[in-house]
Amino acid sequence: MGGGRPAIVLLSGGLDSATTLAVAKSEGYTLHALSFRYGQRHAVELDAARAVARQLGVARHEVVEIDLRSVGGSALTADIPVPMDRSDRQIRTGIPATYVPARNTIFLSFALAWCEVLEAADIFIGVNALDYSGYPDCRPEFIRGFETLANLATRASVEGGLRYQVHAPLIALTKAEIIRKGQELGVDYSLTRSCYAPDESGRACGRCDACRLRLRGFAEAGVPDPGPYQGRS
Amino acid sequence: MGGGRPAIVLLSGGLDSATTLAVAKSEGYTLHALSFRYGQRHAVELDAARAVARQLGVARHEVVEIDLRSVGGSALTADIPVPMDRSDRQIRTGIPATYVPARNTIFLSFALAWCEVLEAADIFIGVNALDYSGYPDCRPEFIRGFETLANLATRASVEGGLRYQVHAPLIALTKAEIIRKGQELGVDYSLTRSCYAPDESGRACGRCDACRLRLRGFAEAGVPDPGPYQGRS
Repeated sequence: MGGGRPAIVLLSGGLDSATTLAVAKSEGYTLHALSFRYGQRHAVELDAARAVARQLGVARHEVVEIDLRSVGGSALTADIPVPMDRSDRQIRTGIPATYVPARNTIFLSFALAWCEVLEAADIFIGVNALDYSGYPDCRPEFIRGFETLANLATRASVEGGLRYQVHAPLIALTKAEIIRKGQELGVDYSLTRSCYAPDESGRACGRCDACRLRLRGFAEAGVPDPGPYQGRS
Repeated sequence: MGGGRPAIVLLSGGLDSATTLAVAKSEGYTLHALSFRYGQRHAVELDAARAVARQLGVARHEVVEIDLRSVGGSALTADIPVPMDRSDRQIRTGIPATYVPARNTIFLSFALAWCEVLEAADIFIGVNALDYSGYPDCRPEFIRGFETLANLATRASVEGGLRYQVHAPLIALTKAEIIRKGQELGVDYSLTRSCYAPDESGRACGRCDACRLRLRGFAEAGVPDPGPYQGRS
């Protein structure tokens, strides 16, 4: 369970957040994993989050219900098609339809609330600004901005004491580097799910941006992707 | 309905947010009111929010479900007593048990998400840093901090275009000044509910900090409080 200081780790059930959880564990934190059922079409990732949390021995795992469908505006939460079969160049250009408005701001806000209750000062988030989909809330300036806000928003900002830190240990890594790091730290990637458009049994499509970034990462790392894909037996 | 630019207005159903909604209306915005069912013990305020939204003619009113009880840590969301019969000096000292961890950060994050979908640039929030309960997320530096974050977090921060503004038109007013302004703007305060510990029929206790600040505000404004109180017929 870890006897160190508590940390809140945002855990989607994907490759990046699983690796981030392992990094926080390797740094000796007592792990408090936080996931969201937010109306995502790929809610199978929550089963993955539970499995990853168990494998890495978290002290507690909360799944918070929030309804982002009432806001809509994303291919992940509304009736908008998930882009498929895009080239690397297309993935790297612009902000795709899978962007969920203000999602990481919302997720970090809940993490901050839990921090206040636990008297935890550390939040971990698996954002990555290299092999990513151009989401504005994955950039270093956003992470620093939230950290600044956290230290203005909370009880501790008035009463003193805690100084919040938002850790983004993957932010400058390639997907292949993330996978190698996770392997060193004992992440079981067969438990993780990255696909935005899995089938009913949770098998990945292999064609959405998340699958393409993941598959290329495993290829570059020289490691087979243990995740289940449609059409593979 | 207003033909102006859209604005998101956080609407709890209390006196301050009702007045803020009227201010946004007087400035010509098309009103999009946003309320939360977050596990608050005084959920009767949501009926008040609906009545206020109707009276002031909003274009749309969303009530988003989020469960802050899973985080807890507040007299409003957990099994912690609401402080009663505190003096002015006690109300002005420290952060009371009714503080909900990171609540305004969470609420503003959802408002920001809705902004992105509506292409709205303006958020209104009824925080007040004068006659208030010492909550850290009601201070001017917090509001400015969130505005800075909004302009780092979103699609527009990468693609250009919108520049988000967080309006807090009541932040420097006394409760009496807020009430006078609301009366000028046609707010029907009989529809609003401020109490943290209402009875089953929604009548205010008259003893919690929110009631005491409200009652003193009406007294100083020289106006009778039209809200229902326990023990009054």
